[in-house]
This record gives sequence, structure tokens and C-alpha cells, in this order.
Amino acid sequence: MELWFSEKLNDRSRISIRIEQQVFHKKSKYQTIDIFETVGYGRLLVIDGFIMLTEEDEFVYHECLAHVPLQLLDQPERVLIIGGGDGGTAREVLKYPSIKQVVMVEIDGEVPEACRKYLPGLARSMDDPRLEMVFEDGASFVQQDQQPFDLIIIDSTDPIGPGKVLFSEPFYKNCRSILKEKGVLTAQTESPFDQMYRETLKGVYASLKRVYGKAYMYTATIPTYPYGLWSFAFASGSADPVNDPFRAFEVPEGLRYYNRELARSMFTLPNFVREITGE
Amino acid sequence: MELWFSEKLNDRSRISIRIEQQVFHKKSKYQTIDIFETVGYGRLLVIDGFIMLTEEDEFVYHECLAHVPLQLLDQPERVLIIGGGDGGTAREVLKYPSIKQVVMVEIDGEVPEACRKYLPGLARSMDDPRLEMVFEDGASFVQQDQQPFDLIIIDSTDPIGPGKVLFSEPFYKNCRSILKEKGVLTAQTESPFDQMYRETLKGVYASLKRVYGKAYMYTATIPTYPYGLWSFAFASGSADPVNDPFRAFEVPEGLRYYNRELARSMFTLPNFVREITGE
Repeated sequence: MELWFSEKLNDRSRISIRIEQQVFHKKSKYQTIDIFETVGYGRLLVIDGFIMLTEEDEFVYHECLAHVPLQLLDQPERVLIIGGGDGGTAREVLKYPSIKQVVMVEIDGEVPEACRKYLPGLARSMDDPRLEMVFEDGASFVQQDQQPFDLIIIDSTDPIGPGKVLFSEPFYKNCRSILKEKGVLTAQTESPFDQMYRETLKGVYASLKRVYGKAYMYTATIPTYPYGLWSFAFASGSADPVNDPFRAFEVPEGLRYYNRELARSMFTLPNFVREITGE
Repeated sequence: MELWFSEKLNDRSRISIRIEQQVFHKKSKYQTIDIFETVGYGRLLVIDGFIMLTEEDEFVYHECLAHVPLQLLDQPERVLIIGGGDGGTAREVLKYPSIKQVVMVEIDGEVPEACRKYLPGLARSMDDPRLEMVFEDGASFVQQDQQPFDLIIIDSTDPIGPGKVLFSEPFYKNCRSILKEKGVLTAQTESPFDQMYRETLKGVYASLKRVYGKAYMYTATIPTYPYGLWSFAFASGSADPVNDPFRAFEVPEGLRYYNRELARSMFTLPNFVREITGE
């Protein structure tokens, strides 16, 4: 018997991963969560039928989302993660000794619970006493008064349904109001190859520029994500990821993707992607 | 009715593209050639069940293979393409007015013939009087005396079966013997994520270093290729793609992927890829 999981990227293509067995399935209040043991990709986390991560290639996504901004900050202490319920982004952030508190705002408490049990390589970060988990809607959390953060990471799902608000200008404004003056915001912003999100992405970068003065896109390749090429937004009232030197004292050991030469390179974009950011 | 083409990348994953209709099918002396009209990816060329290209994303592959070396050469005149029977690489090379002759050595004459008819966006390069097509085995062509080339591009299939010899040290040595002193060789070298080819790639870069003194890897993301992340080798007795200035007078207009900032960035590699090239 051969068991395959397929994600229909859209009406024209799909990616399939061979499954050994299903290890978790739950319909939570918000979504359907599935975890599979795959052949060769380690465990696979799926939410509402979409691939969230595989153990084989999640390091690319999480290292890019966390280390690119952290290396540009001077002794960052407080980090806010919107989403990120698997714990992977928190794991990377907590590698910096200067970090005193990470607040993870995840709407669905069932995701961290499942990941604790079935994806310990990511969720082990939840045992760190510096991590505080808040089970709340991210958009509503940033509307409230908060002690300001050095870094806000938006580790969200796609800009459809409930995730859509996390790609909107009012949300980015609220984020800025709880960010320190020299703070940075990063966010996952889908694949630049994805025609379906092309206009959304143009809007995202235009919004971020209006709110922060400047916004940059950087990219990396994640094999199990649609089209492989993935984009991230970097916005800050002051930090300049292209021309300014790195500030963190040293790069954490054992990273499999990130290095400083690459960190700069990730900001240079193919022509067809420049059309999206308007550079 | 929904018709899907699936490429089994290996025993653990596959990529599928929705098909409108099949427009060409032929078993040649060497291989099986299929061309499909897809939903959203334009036409799709498949050889022996493996995706060779789609009209939607072939620009990434062909621009990287051709413009990265061409921009580092001083008035290049003669280019040898091993493989490349679809015409895409020749199309990019012929964009430079200094080019006097492109020799394309393709083992299977049926491929250019099919592409002329069904993939004119690539094969239109075959009407350029500067292009000479030779239907012969590439490995045997480079063993013979040839008027020396400024650039050799190895636009081959995978390192299995008949394609394997195009990844071997004797072949690279023969290429060097028909390359001008300041000449450059580039080659497609599979995905760095592909465990199956990991040792092969280590061998390829070690061989190129022995033959040329130095060898570099650069990468780009091609959505319809296995794992998305694709690698290319750059070898030369003299040209230094990382530190030396670009030499070509100007970048051809209308490129969708290549630009000079990106050309340099493509040579900075993630940590897990550095392990392959030994950098």
C-alpha cells in the first residue's frame, strides 16, 4: 500500500508527500489539524489541508524569519510572535542570550498542544521559561496597550479567511505602536510566483512602506511550500538590512541555513519580483 | 474530467501539473518525448517522464545558465552548448551582439524538431544563422579537436543513465581542452536538497576544482523542478564571479530574472549547501 498526502496549490498544480502513517487528527474550534509521519520528510504538520511544515525543511523558514531581523538588532530583549504555534520561530529567537521575553500570540491552543506531543524538535521551545503563550487573536492583541517590543514576527497562515487581517494596513499600524523606536517587524509574505497573491503582496509592501517609511522583501527556497520560492517582509523605522552592519554579537551555532553573507544576498531580488515591491 | 501529469521526484514526493491536452508524443531512438498544454504553466516538455521545462518558469533556468557566465566574459564570440535541445539556452546566448557562433550539440534530433513546432518561444533561436546544430553525443564531441570556445554551457539531463558521463572528471577535462584560456564553463548541477545526488554533487565540485583550479556553485529557484532550489556550477581558469567586475557592455533588455546585483547574490550559499561545495 502507498499512502500519499496531496496539497492542491491551486487549480493547476499540486505537491504530494508519501505518508507512513497519520499520527494526529483533530478538529479544533478554529481549524482541522493533522500530523503525519512521512517517508523521508520527517513529520508533516497540515492545517485545513495546507502544508505548514515538514521536519526536513522547516529550518529554512524559521531561520529566515527569526535570524534576519535578530542579527540587525542591538541586544534585543522582547519579541512578539503572532501565530507560530508550532514553536519553530520561538526556538530560533530563544537562541539569543539577550532575549528576556518572547510572547507568542496563537489563536488556537490546540496547535501548540499537538506539536508538544508530536513535533518536539520545534515545540521544545515552549519549555523555556522566557516564553509566554497567549491564546488570543493576534489582530486584537496588537490593538491593546503592550510593553513595547524590539521585534514583532508575523508567522501567519495565508491571507485568506481569518488570516487576511494579518496582512492589512491597520494591523501593521497597530504593530508599529507597540514596537520600540528602533524595532523591526518581519512577516511571511507567500510566494512571489503565486499569481493569486500577487496583488495582495503589492498591497502588503505598499502598506508597510506607508507605515514604516521603508519596507524590504527577502526570499528563500522552501521545497515543500508552493512554488518553492518564499518571501518575507522586513520593515523598520530605522534598521537597514541592506547597507547597515550586523549588530548581534555573534551568529548562534549550528544553523543549517542562515549565514551573514546569505542574509544580505536574500534581499537582492529577481526582476519579476522587483515588480511586486516596486523597487 | 481532470487530467494531471505527475513526476515522481523519488519514492517520497511528487509534483503534479494539470493538463489541458497532450500535443506531442514520440519515442525517439534515445528517449520518450512528450509535450502537454497545461492549465496555467503554458506548455510542458517531458522527457522519459521527467519535467524538462514549462513555459511559465523556464526563464529562470535559462537566464541563470547563460547570463551569469556571459556577463563575466569580454566580448564572447564562440559558445558551445552541450544538450539544450529545446533552444532556450541558445535563445539567451544569442541576445549578445558579440556572439559570432553558437554550437549546440544535442544527441537527439527529435527534441529540437518537436520544440520548433510546439515550443516556438524557445526554439525560435534555431532560426538564427549564428546557431549551428550538431546531432552527436556531447561527451564524444568534446574529445575531438575543436576551435576553442569562450564559453561551454552544459545544459544536460540528470546524472543517471546516458547523462552520467556529462558529470565526470574526464568530460570536464576534455571541455577545458577546447576552452579558451580565459573561458568559462557553466553546468546545471541538480538540487542541493536532493539526497540522492548529494555525493554526486560533491564529486562534481571536487572534479571541477581539480580541473579548473576553482569552481563555484550558484543557485536559483525553479518552481517546477524537484525541491525548487536548483544549482549551477561555474568553473574557469581565470574569471572570478564573486570578486571581479562584470565585463559585458550591458545587460540585455527584457530579462525577467537576471540582474547584476542578483548575479552576485546567487553565489552566496546556505550552510547546508556549503557542505556540498566544501566552502
